[in-house]
Amino acid sequence: MSEANRVWRLRERPFGDITEDVLSFEEESIPEPGDGEFLFRLNYLSLDPTNRVWMSDMDQYMPPVALDDPMRGFVCGTVVKSHHPDYAEGAVVSGLGVWADYQIGTPQLVRPMGDTGPIPVDDAFSAFALVGPTAYLLLLEIGEPKEGETVVVSAAAGAVGSIVGQIAKIKGCRVVGLAGSKEKCAWIQDDLGFDEAINYRTEDVPKALAAACPDGIDVYFDNVGGEILDACLKLMNFKGRIPTCGLISQYNATEPVPGPYNYAMILMQRLRVEGLIPVLDLPERCPEAIAALGQWMAEGKIKVRTEIVDGLENALSTVKKLYSGANTGKLMIRVKDL
Amino acid sequence: MSEANRVWRLRERPFGDITEDVLSFEEESIPEPGDGEFLFRLNYLSLDPTNRVWMSDMDQYMPPVALDDPMRGFVCGTVVKSHHPDYAEGAVVSGLGVWADYQIGTPQLVRPMGDTGPIPVDDAFSAFALVGPTAYLLLLEIGEPKEGETVVVSAAAGAVGSIVGQIAKIKGCRVVGLAGSKEKCAWIQDDLGFDEAINYRTEDVPKALAAACPDGIDVYFDNVGGEILDACLKLMNFKGRIPTCGLISQYNATEPVPGPYNYAMILMQRLRVEGLIPVLDLPERCPEAIAALGQWMAEGKIKVRTEIVDGLENALSTVKKLYSGANTGKLMIRVKDL
Repeated sequence: MSEANRVWRLRERPFGDITEDVLSFEEESIPEPGDGEFLFRLNYLSLDPTNRVWMSDMDQYMPPVALDDPMRGFVCGTVVKSHHPDYAEGAVVSGLGVWADYQIGTPQLVRPMGDTGPIPVDDAFSAFALVGPTAYLLLLEIGEPKEGETVVVSAAAGAVGSIVGQIAKIKGCRVVGLAGSKEKCAWIQDDLGFDEAINYRTEDVPKALAAACPDGIDVYFDNVGGEILDACLKLMNFKGRIPTCGLISQYNATEPVPGPYNYAMILMQRLRVEGLIPVLDLPERCPEAIAALGQWMAEGKIKVRTEIVDGLENALSTVKKLYSGANTGKLMIRVKDL
Repeated sequence: MSEANRVWRLRERPFGDITEDVLSFEEESIPEPGDGEFLFRLNYLSLDPTNRVWMSDMDQYMPPVALDDPMRGFVCGTVVKSHHPDYAEGAVVSGLGVWADYQIGTPQLVRPMGDTGPIPVDDAFSAFALVGPTAYLLLLEIGEPKEGETVVVSAAAGAVGSIVGQIAKIKGCRVVGLAGSKEKCAWIQDDLGFDEAINYRTEDVPKALAAACPDGIDVYFDNVGGEILDACLKLMNFKGRIPTCGLISQYNATEPVPGPYNYAMILMQRLRVEGLIPVLDLPERCPEAIAALGQWMAEGKIKVRTEIVDGLENALSTVKKLYSGANTGKLMIRVKDL
């Protein structure tokens, strides 16, 4: 290959917000795939709240990125050289990779995208690679929403939250979303059909939640932890469920973060609080999630929004948006159009 | 009836530790049972950590005791006057009653003790009325301990904890208990067969737990919350379970208590944290629990210890022992021998 390879490497573990020193962006040689491996070129890089977790040495669900290693990310790319019979040159693949133009793939971590039907590949990657199965399986397997129940979703204008709320509506629930701006609240309520939207930056959250949930909360889909979790715990109904998807409010903390003050509600209301990472824990169920979501998207019952920023060189400045709430929907870097 | 009735009434909600002003002890007339009711005389009064919850106005699982009402408790007594065909005079009954010599029972809250087989009625009340079904069902239904797994129990020399640990041993688990004195630790390890006992007052809990649980923790049976919960969260294995039975470390708090700092472990290790109050939530399963426990007790596989204090007048001074950790096993007041 004549072209250079650009690679983001983790140089420091962030303390608080992600700073420019945390990652370096360097030109390197293009790696050579070994037996059973393939080389692919990055088309899209998914930016996700969990990126901040991998950069740190906090307790986490897989080993953090080692210092000086390429930064880890969910990726979509095109095979350019293959030593694996199932990965032909030109095949579009997605999975867990790194922030680099060219990278080695193995079948364990990267799989063919397959036929995405009427849905463009970038939309399919945006909705299906991570966030769709996460939203679908965590809501349905742990949340178990029933018709007429009240479902509250935090980070409701985010990639996962916006899908969770729409699935809960399809299931016949009253859906209340929390988001961080007037525009986001308008989007989830007017465009996505949430019953109520609460701007957590400007409203009194406990009061607004109580008003929006006159029958209490049956399912709180937790993307954020912190004060919103506490306010929801206070309103949980008997045998309520709290699927725990993320705790973004505390990823950038610089000191230990206390758990919810209303933790005792777990006992008092016999709640079930449970974490699940469907793409890792229930990979065999992901096709079902993708099929259902694809159907609903085709029928116009679920809308997804993707915010695309061009240029791998912008990955670091763009990923920060997730922690300041500056993005709406799925955040992605486009490195090269498919 | 010629005899007077002595009644403990809630006069103030406690702030911090229970003080003498919280309850008053007064002579009153003996109530008259109405249609479908019966009058029973108290033999045993169970003292339980949840008593402190009922005295307060914290969020809880049933309405708190109203100010000036008789204090609520689990009771065992003898029917002395009946307007209900299923409750003959002389029948021994148990259930949810009040701290008073004489009180009205209804079938909703008070049931016949029935035949306790080879187990004396006081032991049966001690083990079966509340703590046995709680230990059995919460451990097995939420904890789901499997052979070879590591089960950690806090308040392990308490009424529930001591039974939980012994059931977990019967199920083939490695069992580690935390208790607050050398004597308690010796009891659970030497007499009850726990694999390890940690004195949480004198040992470095995170360190001692890590040493006692070389393969991590699969089930943490939580009776206390607080720092012990935090230390256990840190060591939880993938898909671990935390049945939440009590949070005694925070019942006497005078300001809001933060939840566990390691709350994120719920997500990172995909834990299940769930509350259950079996005597309220699964009454239909309690006979199964009682039958199993009765069998194990008869076989000597489960030992129970009851600390009995004589005299209803000592109920207030005795209940305080629960919150200072001064009791071992089940704490009861004997008002009148059966």
